[in-house]
Amino acid sequence: MRNLDENTITDAVLARLAQATDERLKEIVTSLVRHLHAFARETHLTEAEWEAGIRFLTEVGHITDEKRQEFILLSDTLGLSTLVTAMNHRKPAGCTEATVFGPFFVDNAPVYNNGDDVANGAQGEPCFVSGVVRGLEGEPVSGARIEVWQADEAGFYDVQYDNNDTHRARGVLHSLPDGRYHFRSIVGVPYPIPHDGPVGSMLDALGRHPWRPAHLHFMITAPGYERLVTHVFREDDRYLDSDAVFGVRSSLIAPWRQHASGTAPDGTHMTTPFATLEFDFVLNRAS
Amino acid sequence: MRNLDENTITDAVLARLAQATDERLKEIVTSLVRHLHAFARETHLTEAEWEAGIRFLTEVGHITDEKRQEFILLSDTLGLSTLVTAMNHRKPAGCTEATVFGPFFVDNAPVYNNGDDVANGAQGEPCFVSGVVRGLEGEPVSGARIEVWQADEAGFYDVQYDNNDTHRARGVLHSLPDGRYHFRSIVGVPYPIPHDGPVGSMLDALGRHPWRPAHLHFMITAPGYERLVTHVFREDDRYLDSDAVFGVRSSLIAPWRQHASGTAPDGTHMTTPFATLEFDFVLNRAS
Repeated sequence: MRNLDENTITDAVLARLAQATDERLKEIVTSLVRHLHAFARETHLTEAEWEAGIRFLTEVGHITDEKRQEFILLSDTLGLSTLVTAMNHRKPAGCTEATVFGPFFVDNAPVYNNGDDVANGAQGEPCFVSGVVRGLEGEPVSGARIEVWQADEAGFYDVQYDNNDTHRARGVLHSLPDGRYHFRSIVGVPYPIPHDGPVGSMLDALGRHPWRPAHLHFMITAPGYERLVTHVFREDDRYLDSDAVFGVRSSLIAPWRQHASGTAPDGTHMTTPFATLEFDFVLNRAS
Repeated sequence: MRNLDENTITDAVLARLAQATDERLKEIVTSLVRHLHAFARETHLTEAEWEAGIRFLTEVGHITDEKRQEFILLSDTLGLSTLVTAMNHRKPAGCTEATVFGPFFVDNAPVYNNGDDVANGAQGEPCFVSGVVRGLEGEPVSGARIEVWQADEAGFYDVQYDNNDTHRARGVLHSLPDGRYHFRSIVGVPYPIPHDGPVGSMLDALGRHPWRPAHLHFMITAPGYERLVTHVFREDDRYLDSDAVFGVRSSLIAPWRQHASGTAPDGTHMTTPFATLEFDFVLNRAS
């Protein structure tokens, strides 16, 4: 430990883990140290580059608060979130695929009844969303907790606005005895991930755009089933092939059907054009 | 890009770098993404573990401010700082070895004359430090800028105190025409790195102690020479073999000699015991 050099430092750090009693933590830190050191060796990282890395992480930390999670954005834009999601949700064929959680989920969103308008003042073209939650054998799942959240027509989630004292375009519903759910919201639009911070600067420097294709987030939980965190993506969106956070799956793309003014699926008389989206979910069995 | 899974995501992320024009940045990010993904695959990282990682980095970011740099502490405790330092300072035999920079350096420390007391009120046993700055051919280096900084007898740097409006136990000197430097300060003691934050919790969880052996920091710059960032470590310290940040080098260990009250090296009459340290530095040529 008194004559460490660039060849011996990695083993020295790993040797220092000898007293760790949490075997899983030891396994994770061992792999982390090996890869972190291999990265530095492979790139022959300079001190100026190391300093730039420290500054970058500091900026990511400082812009992160209760409403903005830049570390999740970083993980998302580097594809780590998609990798972790995919590894942890290997599912039988027929199940709805999972995708990234994203940084805009909020606990304690308001609970709505089926048929309610979760937009709650968020601006956008009216949209009526409906579908069925089923299990792998086709059985309807009753009482599934369905959390939905999305951006408004300006591309912002409620939490991105100053003085956002109201939950808008997000809510919790429960599936009916036949597995059906339905609610009113607004049509999602493509939007750039927050790119006025360090992750945005990183994307710029890498020649990458910050856009995500339009989508609607769902998190569905029900006893006996694996939790499903996913999006439904809007068909024909120009960013489906270059989602900044690598979240798109073909099976999650669906049409938002456009309608002239008239009678909506729930019987409401609409004086403006509106859209409808139907999407069914198939939950995996709990493991 | 629409059917990414755990096997294809890495190549998809790397393909997204096609438009990057900064070749070096592209090289670094390519290596980073490969190792980050390999780490997640190798450990089969769970979503709960990923979330714990996001929380940990967020805490590291939030405790970091102008006076505390927890990301540097993290890099130091994982051995990354030592690796980067070693790779970037391969030197001819005879040069003083470099070691980690640490998080407690402060720009614009006061400039002192040789013989001055840089303690400036910091508490500790008086210590008289002296030596010569030379080049590889033995030539004295005149006018080298010598920045010194250290902890006090309580184990704290000035910046770790609240209301620290004064620089204490840190300063800038310049070597004399014959390369000599000398100043008064205090005797360093072993101290734990700041361990009331997330890095301290990490060390705890890994069964590692947070202590560093007693040392005195030096940064020496002179035209025509490579900048030297190093420490001098105190002989016989109990933590020399287990420095929490992997900074010790045998060649940097030196005795702090103890003296009864009497005449100090600079002629001062000391009414209390004091210590002396002599350490010469050999600078590498600028590359």
